[in-house]
Amino acid sequence: MAKNIKTRKDDYAQWYLDVIKAAQLADHSPVKGCMVIRPEGYAIWEAIQRDLDRRFKETGHVNAYFPLLIPQSFLAKEAQHVEGFAMECALVTHSRLQKTPDGKGVQPDPSSKLEEPYVIRPTSETIIGHMYAEWIQSYRDLPVLINQWCNVMRWEMRTRLFLRTAEFLWQEGHTAHETADEAQEETLRMLDVYADFVQESLAIPVVKGAKTESEKFPGADTTYCIEALMQDGKALQAGTSHNLGQNFAKAFDIKYLGRDNTQQFAWTTSWGMSTRLIGAMIMAHSDDDGLVVPPRVAPVVAAIIPVYKGDAERATVMEFINKILGKLVGEQEVAFAGARNKNAEIKSYFFDKVTNQRIVVDGRDTRPGDKQYHWEQRGVPIRIEVGPRDVAAGAGLVKRRLDRGKETVALDGFSADWLRGKLDELHKLMFDKALAFQQASTREATTYDELKQILSTEGGFVRCYFEPSPENEAKIKAETKATVRCIPFEQAGGEGTDVYTGRPTRTQVLFAQSY
Amino acid sequence: MAKNIKTRKDDYAQWYLDVIKAAQLADHSPVKGCMVIRPEGYAIWEAIQRDLDRRFKETGHVNAYFPLLIPQSFLAKEAQHVEGFAMECALVTHSRLQKTPDGKGVQPDPSSKLEEPYVIRPTSETIIGHMYAEWIQSYRDLPVLINQWCNVMRWEMRTRLFLRTAEFLWQEGHTAHETADEAQEETLRMLDVYADFVQESLAIPVVKGAKTESEKFPGADTTYCIEALMQDGKALQAGTSHNLGQNFAKAFDIKYLGRDNTQQFAWTTSWGMSTRLIGAMIMAHSDDDGLVVPPRVAPVVAAIIPVYKGDAERATVMEFINKILGKLVGEQEVAFAGARNKNAEIKSYFFDKVTNQRIVVDGRDTRPGDKQYHWEQRGVPIRIEVGPRDVAAGAGLVKRRLDRGKETVALDGFSADWLRGKLDELHKLMFDKALAFQQASTREATTYDELKQILSTEGGFVRCYFEPSPENEAKIKAETKATVRCIPFEQAGGEGTDVYTGRPTRTQVLFAQSY
Repeated sequence: MAKNIKTRKDDYAQWYLDVIKAAQLADHSPVKGCMVIRPEGYAIWEAIQRDLDRRFKETGHVNAYFPLLIPQSFLAKEAQHVEGFAMECALVTHSRLQKTPDGKGVQPDPSSKLEEPYVIRPTSETIIGHMYAEWIQSYRDLPVLINQWCNVMRWEMRTRLFLRTAEFLWQEGHTAHETADEAQEETLRMLDVYADFVQESLAIPVVKGAKTESEKFPGADTTYCIEALMQDGKALQAGTSHNLGQNFAKAFDIKYLGRDNTQQFAWTTSWGMSTRLIGAMIMAHSDDDGLVVPPRVAPVVAAIIPVYKGDAERATVMEFINKILGKLVGEQEVAFAGARNKNAEIKSYFFDKVTNQRIVVDGRDTRPGDKQYHWEQRGVPIRIEVGPRDVAAGAGLVKRRLDRGKETVALDGFSADWLRGKLDELHKLMFDKALAFQQASTREATTYDELKQILSTEGGFVRCYFEPSPENEAKIKAETKATVRCIPFEQAGGEGTDVYTGRPTRTQVLFAQSY
Repeated sequence: MAKNIKTRKDDYAQWYLDVIKAAQLADHSPVKGCMVIRPEGYAIWEAIQRDLDRRFKETGHVNAYFPLLIPQSFLAKEAQHVEGFAMECALVTHSRLQKTPDGKGVQPDPSSKLEEPYVIRPTSETIIGHMYAEWIQSYRDLPVLINQWCNVMRWEMRTRLFLRTAEFLWQEGHTAHETADEAQEETLRMLDVYADFVQESLAIPVVKGAKTESEKFPGADTTYCIEALMQDGKALQAGTSHNLGQNFAKAFDIKYLGRDNTQQFAWTTSWGMSTRLIGAMIMAHSDDDGLVVPPRVAPVVAAIIPVYKGDAERATVMEFINKILGKLVGEQEVAFAGARNKNAEIKSYFFDKVTNQRIVVDGRDTRPGDKQYHWEQRGVPIRIEVGPRDVAAGAGLVKRRLDRGKETVALDGFSADWLRGKLDELHKLMFDKALAFQQASTREATTYDELKQILSTEGGFVRCYFEPSPENEAKIKAETKATVRCIPFEQAGGEGTDVYTGRPTRTQVLFAQSY
């Protein structure tokens, strides 16, 4: 067991922070509530971005960039929006520093006070709505299918690396359509894109559903979401897709001349996913030995670890490793990276130049056990150990991070396709493991006592008949800390008894405590 | 001549804005000094990012993300830095909105006033320096080679789309090294990466050199730059690379335990390029008919334009276009994109999934001339026209945007390799044209009168012997509006007469008016 990582059982919250620290994914910063995403963590975000961006483009979306600052008056234009959500935010009030009287420090220059303060975007429906009103004139201009990758800021008091930070990185899609049907179709299409991504690339199973009125995005007609289950039995909302109806179109005057020659309000949607996904990925897969990264977003897919004593053994082992490398990445890349990494102790080779995934060779002069630890705690899916005996046998020892599976692979067995196959196999193992956990942690309740009982002991998702209402949800939350995570698309059908009111209802929901 | 675009000769500044508007690259926003980068412009930025990012990774750099906000006190820690540069910036002073008394608007809640205001990063040397001090303990932790892609903000009063905006997007590299030599090597390496990128991908020739003391980055020991020449004879700084010496290491206490077991300050560098490059690209290549995009960063590499009358002709033409498309992008992509774009009038096909470059077919029911115009003003490198007569001849008419070259290409002549070849050919033509212009616009001056004469009539770069000094540079700037753009690496050698003082000097500089 790793000394620098608490076990999940002992202290789940500390375990999470320890895993992040050991893998050097992120760090606290001197700015309240804001984190630094370190290179190892940012490389995962880049993999997420690349994958999601491809999916957005394949569904016809384009990227654009809108201002960071939003005039404060914009936020007041959509009533629910500002009520629900936009009050805790960073306000820009001055535009110039001046020296303090003692000449040593700086302070805002009072004469630079702005006429109207700006808000650092907590989300961009308002400023984008303003621009859409200028760009959209006719039905011929529709649909507008734009996504933005950017930073946003919400003044959070209680923060936690990746899961809840004042500033975070995300993408926000904003689309405008001619009809209500098209907007609804888009909203659901993007929910599917999100679910597919999280399942196919992060290996996390999700439940798709709709939010209740009290949990929906302020300003939306309907919010859909994907919910994932973490290893401590708490749910995490991994992505949301909002059908905004004509609410923002009316607030920002997004009108078009219709096919029937009359002025009409557009129908808009918005949808977002953030660096929170990295938190979900950590909590869904990692173990008491540290991070476990899903193979399809792993910046380093394999770490090769030479095991030797003395220079002669080292030379033999390194020569053999170069042969394995040649099989995995090609002679050309071995030569290229060898030249580039000349002086580095950890050498890095491109396994895939499109996804930027690498294979590393850890040539540091430290104990083999320390190197094992190092790559284990960084969650690298595959490790390949090579010592003098392996060289003699013409093979390498392949270890899987996920389940500690081991196998000996002969030199000729290594190839790019072999590694791709291994990674796909691992992906499937990870997803199946997470799915089995999710299924085992989803329980049914038929009475309120049963619901409370499950939530207070085992946690997880609780499926039950319940007719959503803001009042009853608030009461249940006060008693159990649990909320309706979603009204799942998959319904049992038929009628049941509302766990809270005892009245008949056809609606099943998922309750859970959540992040 | 395009009616919506002023000629360069008539009004160069307006021509620039008209080109941007016609190509829908960017728009003004309701936030003072901030622009919206529209999808057509952002796609160019994505191409620039992809290309530069690959170059950074191939030279051993990794990406990370640091907070948007910087405690104001950080800026005062490096004296030159705050003096020269960080005073005009956006200041965050409050963290919460409240309703106005009338309940209709919002305003900063006075009780949310921050103890210490934050500055929205104008550049990140300070906050990154603070983190490096925590991360770097030993020479074993060096070098640190980190880049950040982000938005930054400087409160500019006089703004111009892409060239100078309050908020802009950029990358900022920040590295820390064990020795002065390594830092200098890194500074020059990144200058080379920048020069190669601008020349090889944007087809803009540049001059490499050092800034004078009065033009260098506040806080740097030395600033190197690449300077490009625009069509109006003004220079544009396309990228800078700074050797920061130990200045920021001392201000932020970035120390390491050296190989000799003593504490030493690290040597740091920083280097940046921004969305300004898009402005440079526009001004270097575009003409009176609108935008001309360099092929290697063109989001759309070819536009296919059907020319027909009536449904029967349309069907014949479209069928033939599908054959051409099959040759250019493959049958599979034709089928895939056909299904995806079912209802779109302009259909878009991936030419290259890695670079995201596309080929479009403009099936809109508008006049062929309007479509020509449309793609011409968007700067698409290659247009392929197909009418009934072309179908009969089994060929398409290929037109080059850059020089209006035309050729007829038989169906079998089209292939992905053919198009790649065409694009490379066009790149070379563009670069050579820009280089010829740069060379013709670089003149020598041996006296101050000559310098003034050239600057006031022909503009361009003026090469002359001059011993840089802040006082003399300021006087020359006041008289001519020109500055020393750089001390070029390529020096004539030998001694000459300083154009301003008449004294002997061995230093040649390039003067120019600039953006």
